[in-house]
Amino acid sequence: MQPMVDVSPPKWHLAHTSWFFENFFLLSAYLPNYQPFHPDYSYLFNSYYNSVGNRVQRNQRSTLTRPPLREIYTYRQHVDTHLNQLLQNLDKDDVSELMPLLELGLQHEQQHQELLLTDIKYILSTNPLMPAYQTKPIKNAEESAAKATFLSVPGGIYRIGYTGEEFCFDNELGVHEVLLPEFKIMNRLVTNGEYLAFMQDGGYTDFRHWLDEGWAMVQQQHLEAPLYWVKQDNQWFRYTLHGLEEINPHEPVCHVSFYEADAYANWAGKRLLTEFEWEAASQVYLPGGGNFVDSNMLEPQPALASETGLQQLFGDTWEWTYSAYHPYPGFSKAPGAIGEYNGKFMVNQMVLRGGSCATPANHIRPTYRNFFHPDKRWQFSGIRLASK
Amino acid sequence: MQPMVDVSPPKWHLAHTSWFFENFFLLSAYLPNYQPFHPDYSYLFNSYYNSVGNRVQRNQRSTLTRPPLREIYTYRQHVDTHLNQLLQNLDKDDVSELMPLLELGLQHEQQHQELLLTDIKYILSTNPLMPAYQTKPIKNAEESAAKATFLSVPGGIYRIGYTGEEFCFDNELGVHEVLLPEFKIMNRLVTNGEYLAFMQDGGYTDFRHWLDEGWAMVQQQHLEAPLYWVKQDNQWFRYTLHGLEEINPHEPVCHVSFYEADAYANWAGKRLLTEFEWEAASQVYLPGGGNFVDSNMLEPQPALASETGLQQLFGDTWEWTYSAYHPYPGFSKAPGAIGEYNGKFMVNQMVLRGGSCATPANHIRPTYRNFFHPDKRWQFSGIRLASK
Amino acid sequence: MQPMVDVSPPKWHLAHTSWFFENFFLLSAYLPNYQPFHPDYSYLFNSYYNSVGNRVQRNQRSTLTRPPLREIYTYRQHVDTHLNQLLQNLDKDDVSELMPLLELGLQHEQQHQELLLTDIKYILSTNPLMPAYQTKPIKNAEESAAKATFLSVPGGIYRIGYTGEEFCFDNELGVHEVLLPEFKIMNRLVTNGEYLAFMQDGGYTDFRHWLDEGWAMVQQQHLEAPLYWVKQDNQWFRYTLHGLEEINPHEPVCHVSFYEADAYANWAGKRLLTEFEWEAASQVYLPGGGNFVDSNMLEPQPALASETGLQQLFGDTWEWTYSAYHPYPGFSKAPGAIGEYNGKFMVNQMVLRGGSCATPANHIRPTYRNFFHPDKRWQFSGIRLASK
Amino acid sequence: MQPMVDVSPPKWHLAHTSWFFENFFLLSAYLPNYQPFHPDYSYLFNSYYNSVGNRVQRNQRSTLTRPPLREIYTYRQHVDTHLNQLLQNLDKDDVSELMPLLELGLQHEQQHQELLLTDIKYILSTNPLMPAYQTKPIKNAEESAAKATFLSVPGGIYRIGYTGEEFCFDNELGVHEVLLPEFKIMNRLVTNGEYLAFMQDGGYTDFRHWLDEGWAMVQQQHLEAPLYWVKQDNQWFRYTLHGLEEINPHEPVCHVSFYEADAYANWAGKRLLTEFEWEAASQVYLPGGGNFVDSNMLEPQPALASETGLQQLFGDTWEWTYSAYHPYPGFSKAPGAIGEYNGKFMVNQMVLRGGSCATPANHIRPTYRNFFHPDKRWQFSGIRLASK
Repeated sequence: MQPMVDVSPPKWHLAHTSWFFENFFLLSAYLPNYQPFHPDYSYLFNSYYNSVGNRVQRNQRSTLTRPPLREIYTYRQHVDTHLNQLLQNLDKDDVSELMPLLELGLQHEQQHQELLLTDIKYILSTNPLMPAYQTKPIKNAEESAAKATFLSVPGGIYRIGYTGEEFCFDNELGVHEVLLPEFKIMNRLVTNGEYLAFMQDGGYTDFRHWLDEGWAMVQQQHLEAPLYWVKQDNQWFRYTLHGLEEINPHEPVCHVSFYEADAYANWAGKRLLTEFEWEAASQVYLPGGGNFVDSNMLEPQPALASETGLQQLFGDTWEWTYSAYHPYPGFSKAPGAIGEYNGKFMVNQMVLRGGSCATPANHIRPTYRNFFHPDKRWQFSGIRLASK
Repeated sequence: MQPMVDVSPPKWHLAHTSWFFENFFLLSAYLPNYQPFHPDYSYLFNSYYNSVGNRVQRNQRSTLTRPPLREIYTYRQHVDTHLNQLLQNLDKDDVSELMPLLELGLQHEQQHQELLLTDIKYILSTNPLMPAYQTKPIKNAEESAAKATFLSVPGGIYRIGYTGEEFCFDNELGVHEVLLPEFKIMNRLVTNGEYLAFMQDGGYTDFRHWLDEGWAMVQQQHLEAPLYWVKQDNQWFRYTLHGLEEINPHEPVCHVSFYEADAYANWAGKRLLTEFEWEAASQVYLPGGGNFVDSNMLEPQPALASETGLQQLFGDTWEWTYSAYHPYPGFSKAPGAIGEYNGKFMVNQMVLRGGSCATPANHIRPTYRNFFHPDKRWQFSGIRLASK
Repeated sequence: MQPMVDVSPPKWHLAHTSWFFENFFLLSAYLPNYQPFHPDYSYLFNSYYNSVGNRVQRNQRSTLTRPPLREIYTYRQHVDTHLNQLLQNLDKDDVSELMPLLELGLQHEQQHQELLLTDIKYILSTNPLMPAYQTKPIKNAEESAAKATFLSVPGGIYRIGYTGEEFCFDNELGVHEVLLPEFKIMNRLVTNGEYLAFMQDGGYTDFRHWLDEGWAMVQQQHLEAPLYWVKQDNQWFRYTLHGLEEINPHEPVCHVSFYEADAYANWAGKRLLTEFEWEAASQVYLPGGGNFVDSNMLEPQPALASETGLQQLFGDTWEWTYSAYHPYPGFSKAPGAIGEYNGKFMVNQMVLRGGSCATPANHIRPTYRNFFHPDKRWQFSGIRLASK
Repeated sequence: MQPMVDVSPPKWHLAHTSWFFENFFLLSAYLPNYQPFHPDYSYLFNSYYNSVGNRVQRNQRSTLTRPPLREIYTYRQHVDTHLNQLLQNLDKDDVSELMPLLELGLQHEQQHQELLLTDIKYILSTNPLMPAYQTKPIKNAEESAAKATFLSVPGGIYRIGYTGEEFCFDNELGVHEVLLPEFKIMNRLVTNGEYLAFMQDGGYTDFRHWLDEGWAMVQQQHLEAPLYWVKQDNQWFRYTLHGLEEINPHEPVCHVSFYEADAYANWAGKRLLTEFEWEAASQVYLPGGGNFVDSNMLEPQPALASETGLQQLFGDTWEWTYSAYHPYPGFSKAPGAIGEYNGKFMVNQMVLRGGSCATPANHIRPTYRNFFHPDKRWQFSGIRLASK
């Protein structure tokens, strides 16, 4: 089922990630005599690549009640088997062409691993039974979060974008320098407890904290808390992948929109960072640790009270920045279908940085740019403040 | 999945029909110490009974990804077992109260058996693969349909409504007499071939045949054929429960809205019957035969060329009448939840008569009143004409 | 301005009624060398006649900020002058053809005179200033309304439809007989006071009184009173063409939908009449009097306490019947544009009878069939009950 | 009338601009014993200031059929008279507080003078008669536009934002330095002729040129040309304030959305400027001239073929930049209602620079930031390119 257009049926994610390897010239172009698993799958499991041809409309993915799940697994195995075959017999001349595509396919699958979790969470949350995805309880690292402080980042010229030798997405290129004035960055993510203080202070009923379109959203949707928060007997709970749980005030607040993040910052007398400030801070403070999907806790964890420095910059929750998702200077789209991967979305969305508790640890980088519309809340998205 | 609000997920039908027996005072009221299968099911599987309490909104039934199908089957077995237990130990005093409820529950389940087929057909038709529900080919009774003629029904006073001793729905009561002038009724259903002539004569492009709201629907939805008809390489096919098949010109046309039925009648220089004329004709001609779900052909069949008289009055397709679904004189709603079964829908819908190839043979009667909004097309609905 | 699709700008009504005489073959067909006033007006002021050609979409009538009002008046004068010219030089052979068209044009203009008032009322009611259209105060005939009683109408066969020699609309033809059982009809319209009792008894919060689609409308639109009712300081007022006024409990309730009329009847343990019962009662009781637009009071008036018999059958408020607006037996549409006048609307609407305080007195007849969708409330529509 | 939510009725603009002086503490706070013209006007003519209280919803402005236009003019005179009175008797202590508010009110009125023209143009364009606002023909400066060239702007650190002594809006503050690489800027605006080449090359049918949301807009709205362009007999015309006119290939293309501007730039192998690059170029090239509302031509004019250097940077058309409308570093909102003027719109909109042929000449500055959503087309918005 597909409760909103942003969310895809899990079965679709499973098929689409293998579809990516079958198309994009990998198996068809490099494996001699390769036969596609099914003539309709190119149509069924294309997400948004106009270059690849027609496709099932994004809001129609729940029509795919067939093929059944077991056939999708057979499809995945078929693609994997042939990919292995291709890799074992690879012509040396092809390596330099093929490897970047293969790498892109793997990175793409990691992105869908995260989406699988966010989408399953949303799907199950619409079910009146509010079922748990994982029955293992969340183990929280600490009982109380680190005290909030603000760390100074000196003004100056910073290099932005990916300059390493490993994989990066095209939207991290167009490496360039930016001139930043000095600023201060919060040492950890904003907690549920801090956000509750905003709520209890009338945060959702005072227009002065809000951007106009955020305020319109609050009023039209009668918002009064982050997504998944439920009030029962005058106490706040939240739906998690472990089922309905009491709010832990020490955990980072999560599933807020950009509008909520910005309103909270205004209420607190602070502001959000730009993506350039965020990236500069990551160069100055070299943060470590982080709670990723690898821990299998599937919830953001409290910052360590025992630590100083810049915590939670990676993992736990994506951090909304006050930067529109635009091309870097000199950015250019690749030709063909790969050029549709990122570039065509560079309007109306805001950049998020740092990954979340649903992101694979080896998928994230200081230069990684995630992006969503400012009203979206179903991602593991949270808040870090800058001092004005 | 739920591709439109009229269609429910098959799993929901399975649970809702057992829900009907568990609620409506059957198990809870008559079986001592009965424990409901699950405390939430009363909420999950209530269709539209305000008297029974809150419920999952009709357009949200696809949120019920849990409970899984196997648990629904356990639920059905649980209800069946306890119903048997109740019936075997029934107090004689309770028989007269309980039996009508039990009968209603069985009739209700028959209605959902038909809806299961119409809904599955719609769901599978949205799938780009157009999969077959039943691989057995349709066996058509004859190669050519009976010649169309019009049979005369004398004017006079007819008794309308159910006067027998068996089960009927409350909407068949309020038995009363109507005065009808003489009229002529077509001996069989309109065929695909006849409807194609309407289409080829520009039926969908000439406003003069159409009611204004029908014409608006034609233009907004760009209609040019009945539901499930698909043109490929200049030839018309239709999606059936057996997959995509060529149009058989001898079969009754099916899956048309009231608007299309009325436009066809206008084009043909005829009109639709009222429900009173239809019922009067059934008294005059005592029709037999009919193709029901029991034949498992799941498609309307050609009228027998070898027969005379009034054919296909029952089975094959529901017949749109030009009668609004209103209460008969003296109709009164039962108290409580049962009163919500039929009466509250008595506005904005048109009456259909006679059952279809998806109706159980022992479910239909000459006085049976089915009803749908005039734009609906996913039922097995067809056309019979009256002469002006 | 056009606050909803049902309402047209007053200027449009003024032009459209003259448009009717210019088109429909009157001036163009019968007056030699007639030059249309403006080549675009046929397009601008066509309401819904597909036969006459393209037109401004119904919901786009407010785009006509030009031509200005003074030009519309010039247009009206131009048409009137030429009509007079035509009438004074009329060839005798043309009289029999032309007079019915001319009569239809005049009747059409009377209908728009009523619509002008209902539309102006709606337009002004959306203005936060709630301005008065007419400053003259309403003079109510009596301080208290007649006591409610129910008058008996004997069962039998009644002739329905227009059989006279004067003008009638085509939807009154297809004169036919209906067989009716005995019933009782309320002697006057339901009053505001009686309707308030329904409201105070929780009428708008108890689903049991309502048709399902009526109940959905109540909940979606948060209805709690008739259209134009406003609660201020715990007292009910209503917007009238004289401005905002206190509710007069003796006046007939007005601006209710069919759903509200039906819910009120259910709450009161009564029902609405069918249009056939209404017409039969008008034959049995020969009612007189009535408050029409001619009185210029523009509000329904209390029934006379001093009178007995069937009051208010004509004038004051249109009376919702529980009859769908369908063709009478033998009804046939005229060829050409005139055939679009009534016939194409014969689905999804309910019949109202008797005229209102906005209807010209010489426009109404016992056989007159008005029709609106069951959710409409901006007409002067009220309630008369039948005893079950 | 109000054909879309962005457009206000002209009468509303007239009242709202005087409303601004009456509220915002000018007359009420500084003129002793001032009586507001009408107690409801504060409610009727508030645009979007939550701080000032409730208001007529933005999409409901056409409900204000009353007060009539003559009363609005009386209101304007009332406010002007009292403002003059206030200014003549001004306490010296109040001057420093009051003058910035008065200046803001005048600048505000200039903005609405431009909106009046863009809104009247849109309103008249929806009228099937396509009437002219101004019958005086457009006099185009030259027969052919200057040849397109690209002028180099050196890389380096530029100061952004307003540093002068005169009036500026708060969104121009937060003066800061940006580091820019070298770039090239087009010497004039893109012409209709150049844009036609894009159209004729299939610009509106090739997804590769478009941002994804722009492409969705093209398909949903079936776009194939700028707003107001109409094809008749295979030739393109455009609706102007002078009526329907043939496309002049030498005039700047106008009434394009950001999506169209960006697609055109991609097709041309170029890109749009950022607002920082635009402002830097204005510092390097010191452009002069420009066609403003003062010329009363109300259409963008061809660039002078006789001139070199940076033309049309001011006037003619607003220029879409590829910069989101976000706060400058250190931006802070004023307290109270004035704080709602600009800051709360700083999301989801793109910056436009330079003013248009509908802008008063003395209203524009090199640092002036206009902003609209990327799909908007009813402003006089055009295109200037940067070389990649």
